[in-house]
This record gives sequence, structure tokens and C-alpha cells, in this order.
Amino acid sequence: MAHMNRYTAKKDFPVSQVRRFLEPGPIVLVSSKWKGRTNIMTMGWHTVMEFTPSLVGCVISSGNHSHHIIRGSGECVINLPTATLTDTVVKIGNTSGAEIDKFREFNLTPDKGELVGAPLIRECHACFECRLYDDALVDKYDFFIFEVVKAHAAATPKYPETLHYTGDGVFMLSGKTISRKGLFRPGML
Amino acid sequence: MAHMNRYTAKKDFPVSQVRRFLEPGPIVLVSSKWKGRTNIMTMGWHTVMEFTPSLVGCVISSGNHSHHIIRGSGECVINLPTATLTDTVVKIGNTSGAEIDKFREFNLTPDKGELVGAPLIRECHACFECRLYDDALVDKYDFFIFEVVKAHAAATPKYPETLHYTGDGVFMLSGKTISRKGLFRPGML
Repeated sequence: MAHMNRYTAKKDFPVSQVRRFLEPGPIVLVSSKWKGRTNIMTMGWHTVMEFTPSLVGCVISSGNHSHHIIRGSGECVINLPTATLTDTVVKIGNTSGAEIDKFREFNLTPDKGELVGAPLIRECHACFECRLYDDALVDKYDFFIFEVVKAHAAATPKYPETLHYTGDGVFMLSGKTISRKGLFRPGML
Repeated sequence: MAHMNRYTAKKDFPVSQVRRFLEPGPIVLVSSKWKGRTNIMTMGWHTVMEFTPSLVGCVISSGNHSHHIIRGSGECVINLPTATLTDTVVKIGNTSGAEIDKFREFNLTPDKGELVGAPLIRECHACFECRLYDDALVDKYDFFIFEVVKAHAAATPKYPETLHYTGDGVFMLSGKTISRKGLFRPGML
């Protein structure tokens, strides 16, 4: 049963609202494909940059195999893992796609994207198909600006238990949610 | 007593390790000062970009009063509020420093920085003094790259309860921490 529940079917999600998942700062898995080979990396250095177009900025070190795949292909998928994938997230971050096939090694399922060639990771809660939008700061800071061109997310749970990295091998797990909607001016929501 | 416990004395914290607080993705308060006037804004769009120099990238919309203060002064302080400041964080985000003095309005204490003119917010768990490091993407994306030149943090709790914004008036509170240190290759920690 546990194995059968490794994933939930996803639905289309509005690209302008990916901040719902990314702004809280979770660790994500970035999947990519170039010249027939796929890869996955663990990434914690990212920020939402704009609603429309839906822009996300990420630091992907040139020491990572993924850097070259993503720069070459101009595409990737940002996948949101939940706490059930914690050990996999760590292991993906501690291995190189130059040496192993991470989908096979970590028993993850590549699903076909609609708009990009990079594979979606089925076991993740949400998957954001991205195209490289601006590489102006890649040479200087390894900073890629992506446009999320298509988003997919499981409908439940509304607030999945995500992983947030603090360094030194320690993750913070997302906790409860609280609403302060009543304190917001309408235009600020 | 509650009032007396609104803050804990801070100690010097290594600037190369601010990812400990920022990488998990908390909402932060950005304080600034220019031409004798201070301001505070609430910010959720930021990412660590480098350990040394200690770089943090942030989106600060040109619609915010703080944008102009920070561009003019070339400085700010990134302050880390905890859940006890939730309502204040929302109210700061829903008002403009062009109209009110936010320190006075929200009963916050400005402390003098060591290296920048912008004030630290005493009631926050940690305060990072920043200098504008690169404004190459400010015109196009409102994206500021800051160098953290001095960091201050309360010694306890080690993992403060932070606020993580999901949009629509809803915050996720940081939950428990788990270590997977044993799964990391030494060089990856």
C-alpha cells in the first residue's frame, strides 16, 4: 500500500500562482534532459521573481552536471518533493548525474512534459515546466532565470509537508498554516 | 513579562552561514534609511546566492517606498521575525513608509548597525547588515544582489519559529527539524 501511494494524480495549476508552493522556500528537485540523457539535482537557492510572466530565479552551480544540461537544453522541470522523499532528496544531492542515472538509481518515474523535453518526476507533489528566460547572470553568479510555462500539482493536501534546508544536514519540515487574510488590504492579497 | 521578552540579545554570527536562516525561505523584514528617514518592508522573494562573499538576491518592487531608499543609500538590513511578530509583519506589508513611520507605528526598536546606516530591528531573531553588491538586474527585474557584511543572531532558540508566506493571506509556520547528516558525503555538508 505504501508503495501504491507514492504519488497522486496531478491537475493543471495556474502558472501565475506557483508562489503558493515556491515562496515558502522548499527544497526542490530539478530535472533536466539533453542529448538523450536525463538528470536530477537537489536545489535550495531559488526565489519567485514575477507573477506574469511566471519567473523563478535559481542558483545552479557550474560544478553541477545539471548546469551544463540546462544551459545546453534551455529547459528544466522544478519538482516539489514532500517529506516522504527526504532520504531520496539527500541522496540525489550527494551523487552526480555524470556517473549514475538518478531516475533508475532512486526508483523515480519520469513523466513526459507538455511543453519541455525535460521529464517530470511523478512522485513529487507538483511539477513546474520551465524554459530558460534570461541567462544574463549565469556566467557571473550561476543564476538562471526561468519562466514557468506549465504547472501541474496534486489537488490534495492543499499544503503538503515540504522540506526546507538549513545546512549541516538538517531540514526544517513545514508546520501548520495560519491565515491573516482579514488583516490584509484587498489589493495586497 | 511578555513585553520584556520581546527580544533576546544577539551575538555576532558568521556572515558565510546566513543560509542557516535564509535558505528555509522565511518572510523577512527589510529595514532601510536614507536622508534621515527610515522604512521597513515585508519581503518573501529572496534567495541565498553565495557563501563567500555572502550574497543574497531579493526582489524589491519599484512600487515599494523601500526600493528607492535602498537604491539611493545602497544599504539595508534583512531582519528575521518570528511567529510572535505575525500581525506586525502583515501590517508592515500593508502600509507605506511614504505615509507613516513604521518603527513608531508598530512599536519596533531601531538599533544602530555596525557597518551600515540602516537600522536593525531589535525585536527580530537575527539581523543581517547588507550593502548593495550588484544592481545589474534592478532596472529589469527589481532584483537586488546584496552582500551581508555583518550578521547578528540570538543564540536561542537554535531554530526559531519562522513565517513562510504562501499567498492569499496564509502563512506556513516552520515545523520540526530532522537531521540526515549521516546520509551526506562529508564534502556536501
